[in-house]
Amino acid sequence: MIDLYTFTTPNGRKPAILLEELEMPYTIHSVNIGKGEQFAPEFVTISPNSKIPAIVDRDTDLAIFESGAILIYLAEKAGKLLPTETGERIKAIEWLMFQMASVGPMFGQFGHFRNFAPEKLPYAINRYEKETLRLLGVMEGQLAKTPFLAGDYSIADIATYPWVAAAQSPYMELSFDEFPHVQRWVEAIAARPAVKAGMDVLQPTFESQVGTVA
Amino acid sequence: MIDLYTFTTPNGRKPAILLEELEMPYTIHSVNIGKGEQFAPEFVTISPNSKIPAIVDRDTDLAIFESGAILIYLAEKAGKLLPTETGERIKAIEWLMFQMASVGPMFGQFGHFRNFAPEKLPYAINRYEKETLRLLGVMEGQLAKTPFLAGDYSIADIATYPWVAAAQSPYMELSFDEFPHVQRWVEAIAARPAVKAGMDVLQPTFESQVGTVA
Repeated sequence: MIDLYTFTTPNGRKPAILLEELEMPYTIHSVNIGKGEQFAPEFVTISPNSKIPAIVDRDTDLAIFESGAILIYLAEKAGKLLPTETGERIKAIEWLMFQMASVGPMFGQFGHFRNFAPEKLPYAINRYEKETLRLLGVMEGQLAKTPFLAGDYSIADIATYPWVAAAQSPYMELSFDEFPHVQRWVEAIAARPAVKAGMDVLQPTFESQVGTVA
Repeated sequence: MIDLYTFTTPNGRKPAILLEELEMPYTIHSVNIGKGEQFAPEFVTISPNSKIPAIVDRDTDLAIFESGAILIYLAEKAGKLLPTETGERIKAIEWLMFQMASVGPMFGQFGHFRNFAPEKLPYAINRYEKETLRLLGVMEGQLAKTPFLAGDYSIADIATYPWVAAAQSPYMELSFDEFPHVQRWVEAIAARPAVKAGMDVLQPTFESQVGTVA
């Protein structure tokens, strides 16, 4: 049994999608980052960087933070969605790192300066919008060659999809007209039942399952 | 034999340090990002995100981009600096992800707005300085408990050290008075001969070994 500590953000949805894909039993614990619950001492013990998501694997008593580490751990535990052959495996890890190091942080900064910063700073908004579009262009180049980021569907796609979905949402409102392969990839992933369930984490349909951080 | 495509940046130094630690033979190819060489088509074939570092393993013909993926690949190839026991291994990957997703991107944004942005934007400088100090505080908490980020010295430390060294340099000029455990960790890592050699990548002493991107 996995305890998943998470919230309704792109990073928070990644492990929920993977757990659904793996059909691995899990319990959701809401960590409301709007209320600062990520700084509660009980949560910091599990996630020293005070960020969601984090998990505790009750089978092994391991607490794990950082969504990228959680995805690798769960995929290896299940033996699915992360290839074992060296060349295929490193491709999946490479595109997972691309998400962790670039897509997440840069899309996130764009969202911040566009929506939340107390001043509208044109230089910062433009810097991150340009980088977000450049990164979508890198994905477009890759998805013109392969159905999914690392060939077959993998944890690299699961990590990236919630951020790309956010880029199309009112949060960023980017047009994908210039990224037809990304659009095809988005639609293929969005249609998966496990992805729908994972994206709905902590939405009303999940309310009855929700616990608390403590 | 490993071909390492890199430059004199914190990310560029990570694989050089690891290759030195592993005593694995490698050839350095300079990709001068000041001259835009990362956009050269020959390099983009190896590194589709147009970022250094990247490697080509001539033993397997695998081309790998993203420093975090390169570190995992090389450590697993050598069977060193990434534990194999599940719990220890996931701790090293967790702190590696912390570097890839937070330390690198956020320290990097601080450096950008402090040093390179055409306008001085107090909100942006303050945002990233605050986050950089918060992240150093997270490291301080961990290093108060363990000698290195994930227990023993690992690729998590190799990934993080060049960025923390940059935070102490004129590039960021942060004081570490409030981070004594980070300071102790910095000094322990800086004293390693392999780290000194890797940090000097493409400095004058390496000039005779330097090839070109093509």
